[in-house]
Amino acid sequence: MSKVLITTVPFGDKNRLPLELLENAGIEYLINPHNMKLTEDQLAELVADFDVIIAGTEHITDKVMARASNLKLISRVGIGLDNVDLMAAKRRGIRVSYTPDAPAPAVAELTLAMMITLLRSVHVSNTQMHQGKWQRIVGRRLAEITLGIIGVGRIGARVLRRVMAFGTPQLLVNDIMPNYELNREFKLEWVTKEQIYREADIISVHVPLTHLTKNMIRREHLLSMKPDALIINTSRGSIINEHDLHDVMMTGHLGGAAIDVFEREPYVGKLADIERCLLTSHMGSMSVDCRTRMEIEATEEAVRFLAGKPLESEVPQAEYDVQSEGL
Amino acid sequence: MSKVLITTVPFGDKNRLPLELLENAGIEYLINPHNMKLTEDQLAELVADFDVIIAGTEHITDKVMARASNLKLISRVGIGLDNVDLMAAKRRGIRVSYTPDAPAPAVAELTLAMMITLLRSVHVSNTQMHQGKWQRIVGRRLAEITLGIIGVGRIGARVLRRVMAFGTPQLLVNDIMPNYELNREFKLEWVTKEQIYREADIISVHVPLTHLTKNMIRREHLLSMKPDALIINTSRGSIINEHDLHDVMMTGHLGGAAIDVFEREPYVGKLADIERCLLTSHMGSMSVDCRTRMEIEATEEAVRFLAGKPLESEVPQAEYDVQSEGL
Repeated sequence: MSKVLITTVPFGDKNRLPLELLENAGIEYLINPHNMKLTEDQLAELVADFDVIIAGTEHITDKVMARASNLKLISRVGIGLDNVDLMAAKRRGIRVSYTPDAPAPAVAELTLAMMITLLRSVHVSNTQMHQGKWQRIVGRRLAEITLGIIGVGRIGARVLRRVMAFGTPQLLVNDIMPNYELNREFKLEWVTKEQIYREADIISVHVPLTHLTKNMIRREHLLSMKPDALIINTSRGSIINEHDLHDVMMTGHLGGAAIDVFEREPYVGKLADIERCLLTSHMGSMSVDCRTRMEIEATEEAVRFLAGKPLESEVPQAEYDVQSEGL
Repeated sequence: MSKVLITTVPFGDKNRLPLELLENAGIEYLINPHNMKLTEDQLAELVADFDVIIAGTEHITDKVMARASNLKLISRVGIGLDNVDLMAAKRRGIRVSYTPDAPAPAVAELTLAMMITLLRSVHVSNTQMHQGKWQRIVGRRLAEITLGIIGVGRIGARVLRRVMAFGTPQLLVNDIMPNYELNREFKLEWVTKEQIYREADIISVHVPLTHLTKNMIRREHLLSMKPDALIINTSRGSIINEHDLHDVMMTGHLGGAAIDVFEREPYVGKLADIERCLLTSHMGSMSVDCRTRMEIEATEEAVRFLAGKPLESEVPQAEYDVQSEGL
């Protein structure tokens, strides 16, 4: 009998359908008994017998795979592949699939809330009000600012579409593979990342974590931003160096930051000391509909695979190329 | 020499232009020396010599006007007139003007941030993260819910326009004077307030404070809402009874609330004890551009009046009718 390990949690929580898909196919499954993001060691201990992992963002390394002699498929609930050693998987004949489109609407919507929250200091006012302090803070509207988007793919483009409902900020964009088709829809200025750092009032990052983007935004980049610039990361931790972000903000530089993703999760760290830093616990994709779609798509892929049918959302070669260039 | 009392604070803070308009016209002015919302007594003490008040939301009562023998114009920075005794002003020959359109874009934008923040529990996660707690909360997207808007005027209609960028929720709306022209733009269901209370996942209130709307949403209405309903008030305090809101939320009813306006401001009160209650300090109109536009428009009206020119934004008779019906 085939066995599936579900590492990502919560899973099947708001909607049981993904679990029912497994049950109806007669597939045995185990949901992550630690109920939190697994360490490499925890995963290595758990993984022995399983044929498929329905995976979150825990690190699936060569060491983990070495312990998983039955493993034939990693089905990622989500889009990022930074946690999966694709080269090791390929060497070991383990296939990898993902759900690249499902999270995008939820991440884009959260990003918009973060933009307005930072611009209007909603989080700061809320903290102060809960402490009994009343201070009317004057902010800015989206229409009045220069917005810089780094990474204009599935999520970045959706962010732009939603921003337009609030007026027309100046739009500075950067992407390693610019999609000039978007110029039909938006008045975009394709510029260097450095120009975005220097000129944008809000900078939002929507890139995958790769060897090219790890620590992409460090102290010197943060310091080149406007003193009241706002920065948002709903993509992956480590892209903005969070230690540098803390140190720079402690000097009073930057008007605010909204950080949903961290180098190590669950996050415990010094950004929590900064009131104007809006922190959330990796909730970008956490809407019932997107989360359910991600879980169902990743589960369907597992069921298909175990039934001997072709995969429908296997990770393309380009993702392997990006990782192998970094090795 | 004409004298203008500016009661609303901050004023001319981010943009000095309104103060320069007064200076260039040779008009003497005093900015509220208490630097916070004036009580009736404080205002009565200050107001003696002034020809014009450039006014905020402090109470300009018959008692205040009795002390203001030179007063000929109240120029409101903003739209609400609940704080001005229009009947007393009329009796005393004091004219009243306002800036009804200027605040709307800023209020609508803040409202959208509050909707998404409540739906995704961003404020709760931020509070928890700052306390070192990590909990991934699953929320909902705007497209997936039923949205109820009470009051579909300048601000309510702008809220609808911005919501549409996020998908198409079911839209329940109510207004004392329905503007069916909006049906060309949106797929609206015009329903009773009671149906909105019962069926909406988010309820946002965009009505003026009048005798008809004071305490409009009380305990029984809050209790008739869904257990996880979310409620937003960026209009005026007292429209939702904040004591009832506190008591009802303390029982666990309602998924969250976002409250920007209070019965008494600055607010000090028990809503601050409720983590899922997002509180801001009357910042709806507080964006640099809207605030500046409001200040400039109200100041221009004062300058025009003192130069003997006609007013351009005098409060219409309908506003007097609404108030007189309540007396």
